[in-house]
Amino acid sequence: MSRTFELFLHETKQLIERELPEFIRTINTESRLKEAMLYSIEAGGKRVRPVLLMAVLDAYKFPIKDGLEVACALEMIHTYSLIHDDLPAMDDDDLRRGKPTNHKVFGEATAILAGDALLTHSFYLLSQITHVSAETKLHLISLFSEAAGAKGMVGGQLADMLAEGKLLGVNELASIHNRKTGELLAFAVEAGAVIAGTTPEDQRKLRAFGKEIGLLFQIKDDILDLEGSVEAIGKPVGSDVHNDKSTYPGILGLDGAKAMLASHYDQALQSLNELGLRNTLLEDMATYIVNRDR
Amino acid sequence: MSRTFELFLHETKQLIERELPEFIRTINTESRLKEAMLYSIEAGGKRVRPVLLMAVLDAYKFPIKDGLEVACALEMIHTYSLIHDDLPAMDDDDLRRGKPTNHKVFGEATAILAGDALLTHSFYLLSQITHVSAETKLHLISLFSEAAGAKGMVGGQLADMLAEGKLLGVNELASIHNRKTGELLAFAVEAGAVIAGTTPEDQRKLRAFGKEIGLLFQIKDDILDLEGSVEAIGKPVGSDVHNDKSTYPGILGLDGAKAMLASHYDQALQSLNELGLRNTLLEDMATYIVNRDR
Repeated sequence: MSRTFELFLHETKQLIERELPEFIRTINTESRLKEAMLYSIEAGGKRVRPVLLMAVLDAYKFPIKDGLEVACALEMIHTYSLIHDDLPAMDDDDLRRGKPTNHKVFGEATAILAGDALLTHSFYLLSQITHVSAETKLHLISLFSEAAGAKGMVGGQLADMLAEGKLLGVNELASIHNRKTGELLAFAVEAGAVIAGTTPEDQRKLRAFGKEIGLLFQIKDDILDLEGSVEAIGKPVGSDVHNDKSTYPGILGLDGAKAMLASHYDQALQSLNELGLRNTLLEDMATYIVNRDR
Repeated sequence: MSRTFELFLHETKQLIERELPEFIRTINTESRLKEAMLYSIEAGGKRVRPVLLMAVLDAYKFPIKDGLEVACALEMIHTYSLIHDDLPAMDDDDLRRGKPTNHKVFGEATAILAGDALLTHSFYLLSQITHVSAETKLHLISLFSEAAGAKGMVGGQLADMLAEGKLLGVNELASIHNRKTGELLAFAVEAGAVIAGTTPEDQRKLRAFGKEIGLLFQIKDDILDLEGSVEAIGKPVGSDVHNDKSTYPGILGLDGAKAMLASHYDQALQSLNELGLRNTLLEDMATYIVNRDR
């Protein structure tokens, strides 16, 4: 990892982890609800969506703070989706990032409501973005709601559920993942481009790069689920296999999955080439996702 | 009920019931998710929030169609809240408007996701409002997210849950209801005022009227829960008492609750007086809420 990228990761994480809880602490609501929201918001994680967004801003020489509200909205919606996914009626997970899941600590009802509140508040935050025009804010809200809703993440979650126990082809699996996690990652990249005011053509290309990143992320996750340690990944090793879920190594074998990872990594770099954004933090980000051990 | 008001109710309901499902049918997503969303969206109901919004538009001589997107967003968010409230981990209800609840038909996981999708899509809809400026849209999104989120409805739902089995005073009960249902009803009224471009002073007064409407609505609901028939209200009579929930008749007695209803009805009319909006559909609406038998 380059020294610059390491510093950038550190700075971004620090900014998010300082500002994100503040957006929740200032809401006038029940302390129990706030506590449940903050519990999952502060559970850590890689903050990949904010990092992606801010890497785009940096590549276009914008200050990363210009992406603060969108970055925090992304973390809120990502966190709500994890809380709801972990519920007994869904994936029924007891552990998340090495800590008890939200409903294990606060009970199911509060966990459902904490998720609903985070989801709703992410839109409040988007309505309050500084530094951009009203039209740009609305454009971001429109893209964000599509990436997070029935067309994107929520629909992908249902598709994932319906696919459980079924034998999927690699394209079907990629299509489900694309909606479940790819759309929101692609939005993170696209939002950076929108805030930086790049051309529609560059926005389209960056969106495509964001989709590659989503794919890289998921393939690597599946590989880590087989090869990682419980300490590093914060959940039992092999839990996907246990949950009867299709995975890239399950379909292609471990070597096949690694080859697919390498090939999409090349495609991601190719996209950056076309954008004239090689040797930026975006390249470091793709490399980081492929090489991470957690 | 005046002939004009009856026609208005009919016209508004018809518009909503024709257009609302279309906003969902056109989403590109899993048919099962769409089916679950449409099941609850098409379960009927009084469409009180759209009616309130459109009554304000009519009072200011605006076409009711100018409120279509906000009205449908209101119905989506209201419907999501019912789906989540009915879940086994929450109120655990099997019946809603005389029909099996969403999770009884589609299972818990799909019901959770259908709620999430409706909530998310309501914001998409608000980003697409026609007839108003970008600034006005953002203002509506900001008000809407506050009314629906931790500060408003979701927080009220948690407060309601925490209060179960406790002996509440009438002010505590009113404060919980104000957040659980009042904020969104007040938003419906305020949104009408914002779209009609009224003065901030009138917006403030209309918001106060909306809060009175919310209170009237809840007191009347509690009275109907005791006096109504299962055919009319679509759920078992006395289910609040059975669920160990505080109600206005429970605290004040049936006569006391009716007196409170009458007094807040007077206050609602007083607000309309100050606005110069007596003898509009808004007065009919208040009267309708107080006199309804379901």
